[in-house]
Amino acid sequence: MSISKDALVPLAKRMFDGATHKLDVWSIFTPANVPPDCINLGQGFMNWAPPDWIREASHESMDTNAMSHHYSHPRGRPRLIQAISKHYSPQFENLVKEGRTLQTEEIVVTAGANCGMYAALVAHLQPGDEVILIEPYFDQYFASIHFQGGVPVFVPLHPPPVEAEPSDVTSGTNGHLKRHVYSSSEWTLDLDEFRAAFTPRTKCVIINTPHNPVGKVFSREELEGIAKICVENKVLVLSDEVYDVMVYDGLEHVRIASLPGMWERTLTVCSAGKAFACTGWRVGWLMGPPPLVSATLAAHSRIVFCTNSPMQEAVAIGLEGAKEHNFFPKQLEEYKARRQVITSYFDQLGLSYTMPEGGYFVLVDMSPVKVPEGYPIPPTCQGRGKDFELCWWLCQEIKVVGIPPSEFYCEEHVNIGERFARFAFCKDLDLLHQAGKRLLRLKEFM
Amino acid sequence: MSISKDALVPLAKRMFDGATHKLDVWSIFTPANVPPDCINLGQGFMNWAPPDWIREASHESMDTNAMSHHYSHPRGRPRLIQAISKHYSPQFENLVKEGRTLQTEEIVVTAGANCGMYAALVAHLQPGDEVILIEPYFDQYFASIHFQGGVPVFVPLHPPPVEAEPSDVTSGTNGHLKRHVYSSSEWTLDLDEFRAAFTPRTKCVIINTPHNPVGKVFSREELEGIAKICVENKVLVLSDEVYDVMVYDGLEHVRIASLPGMWERTLTVCSAGKAFACTGWRVGWLMGPPPLVSATLAAHSRIVFCTNSPMQEAVAIGLEGAKEHNFFPKQLEEYKARRQVITSYFDQLGLSYTMPEGGYFVLVDMSPVKVPEGYPIPPTCQGRGKDFELCWWLCQEIKVVGIPPSEFYCEEHVNIGERFARFAFCKDLDLLHQAGKRLLRLKEFM
Repeated sequence: MSISKDALVPLAKRMFDGATHKLDVWSIFTPANVPPDCINLGQGFMNWAPPDWIREASHESMDTNAMSHHYSHPRGRPRLIQAISKHYSPQFENLVKEGRTLQTEEIVVTAGANCGMYAALVAHLQPGDEVILIEPYFDQYFASIHFQGGVPVFVPLHPPPVEAEPSDVTSGTNGHLKRHVYSSSEWTLDLDEFRAAFTPRTKCVIINTPHNPVGKVFSREELEGIAKICVENKVLVLSDEVYDVMVYDGLEHVRIASLPGMWERTLTVCSAGKAFACTGWRVGWLMGPPPLVSATLAAHSRIVFCTNSPMQEAVAIGLEGAKEHNFFPKQLEEYKARRQVITSYFDQLGLSYTMPEGGYFVLVDMSPVKVPEGYPIPPTCQGRGKDFELCWWLCQEIKVVGIPPSEFYCEEHVNIGERFARFAFCKDLDLLHQAGKRLLRLKEFM
Repeated sequence: MSISKDALVPLAKRMFDGATHKLDVWSIFTPANVPPDCINLGQGFMNWAPPDWIREASHESMDTNAMSHHYSHPRGRPRLIQAISKHYSPQFENLVKEGRTLQTEEIVVTAGANCGMYAALVAHLQPGDEVILIEPYFDQYFASIHFQGGVPVFVPLHPPPVEAEPSDVTSGTNGHLKRHVYSSSEWTLDLDEFRAAFTPRTKCVIINTPHNPVGKVFSREELEGIAKICVENKVLVLSDEVYDVMVYDGLEHVRIASLPGMWERTLTVCSAGKAFACTGWRVGWLMGPPPLVSATLAAHSRIVFCTNSPMQEAVAIGLEGAKEHNFFPKQLEEYKARRQVITSYFDQLGLSYTMPEGGYFVLVDMSPVKVPEGYPIPPTCQGRGKDFELCWWLCQEIKVVGIPPSEFYCEEHVNIGERFARFAFCKDLDLLHQAGKRLLRLKEFM
């Protein structure tokens, strides 16, 4: 948002220092701000509605239960709390070992995963406390830390080096081009670097698996290494697992909270928006030990009081009925097909990309694409990574929206991210083909 | 929420200092925490659903428009922004005089009025900045200020003195008792006291009209006096007008933003939950000059990203159709009948109360009611105003929930509020009669 230091009523400094004064990437590439004939592979929203069976039962709940329109308990509606407990308890190895299920005191429903993480940080961060972020990081984390007076500390994932022998070299489908396909597992965290980022002020670490935008699903071994260091340093861990229902290729999604010594210090963050294709419902939840959950709840109930009620009921309906409708396995197959379609166009273009093991984003190395010299770039995109220039041109001229991932790096590390663009493939096959066909025009600029 | 200083991960100090460490009144008297057979006149939610015509059109929008399930623009959905502009523009005298309507840049839709005010304070408060609150104040304001490092400063409304000649003395309907009925206009702000509360650190003033819990509708003259002082002191004004559709007795609801010199410094706060009987939809909006609105939007988009989409569509449907359905005048008549029913029982009891000119709460002077000595009171209600004791006993024994208004005063002013209880009459007539009949049992304790 464009804000001014010269307002009649002076703004808080937190709105200007840090990186928060820049117009956020979502506002630059929001559908209202790009040419209307663009295909939007920018923001990660689906172009379909949540399933009929959820919508129908949700309408019925709204028609027959007046209380579904009124305040919920700040912790969340009992029906949803129960559904979360039933659905997630078997997914935490530690709970299974203990032969128990998630208790009410271990769950808080929030106004989206975003506000849940914000509330957890309001509850726990003292001004000056440091929070370690693994780059590229979801940009909303920054303000959630910074607004509490916290200090983000950055540790990058290392992308597979461009000079290295590619992990997979095949000819493009047109037979003319070579391209590199990396696996998201080739983006690696250097545990020594990670360990070195801790100081006596480190209060919290934010983990994101499956990872946005890399698509990396952290392995058990990687998470064990991270967990050991977090336990040693006695920090809070926020584990953002909102893409947990999109893990491909038979990989295991390990919840870091379930590793030894981790439950007591970890809040696991999930999202209905991602799970049921309803990003606008703004329903998420955090699961963890009662002290962390109750502190988050205390902050959240002051920030928004409670999460919207009708959509909480709808999400409960979704979790209760998922098994009967074989919903998650079917959805996963659909996402795999989408991933195949979008990447097939980058194959044809001969652009290197990272094949995501999870989530619904693909990072494409756009360095071979040359934006015509002197192309007009708006002030909002100037003075940032060169990917802002490329993505702006892309939406104006190729009519496909992608997101510049340098937004997800601190200023010193912009160079790691700026050769990529992030494309969301949470779109139906038809739209992905249309977008892919437009992207083929990039050949003229390579 | 019960939170502990001894957590494995230490909590932020903001969770303990100020008044935020106490369990909030809403959690104590939430339906899940009181006997299930209670009638809840505590929290201000209705026991009916929003109108059929809104629900039906909302279902249709959810069934036919996939995008109604996905992220909204952080400012709000275009359809709702347009409906707000159309509905409210004629209500701001200054805009009418200028012959113009509210522009998109003058509106931001928020996750309830609560989060809108929270975001405005995140955007504007520097640590140490002071915010003037008029007591009794809606308790959520406190944390919204305190969490940003702001400092609340308290100026009380003065209740009509108990010793004074009552403004209206009539015999109760049973003909045996005398009682005082005050008008909410008899709760007065001393402008000298108000002026004296300003310091060089004063950044903001929060006004609430119609007022919760007093029911006071600030007069034009009172607001002009307040406005003059706010303009002199160059402060931001947050005007919480969420009860603006419930103004009784032909009184005028004056919007302070429309007074001379005020538009540029005022954010007017409204709420769909109050207007359409859907407190759980969590849709509110702020209206004001672009600099204040864009700063609030910048903060809000980091806190919750955007407001939930399906209910934004539903609210737009409500505002668009209100006139055709003669919705607000009809609703007002219904509220007047509810006010009449609930107060008739206090008449019968001979308890003094404040007849509200607006909103849906009535403050009753409970001092004649004696809680039996030694009655067990939980720790959450101890060490607070004596109204906490009374309200706890009331819900356990009389099975009616009321809210102790001392929650809405700073510690030094608890004595002003603790003789009252707040009862919400946003309940259907049948339930109000049931509650009233239970309350008649109070005679045994007077």
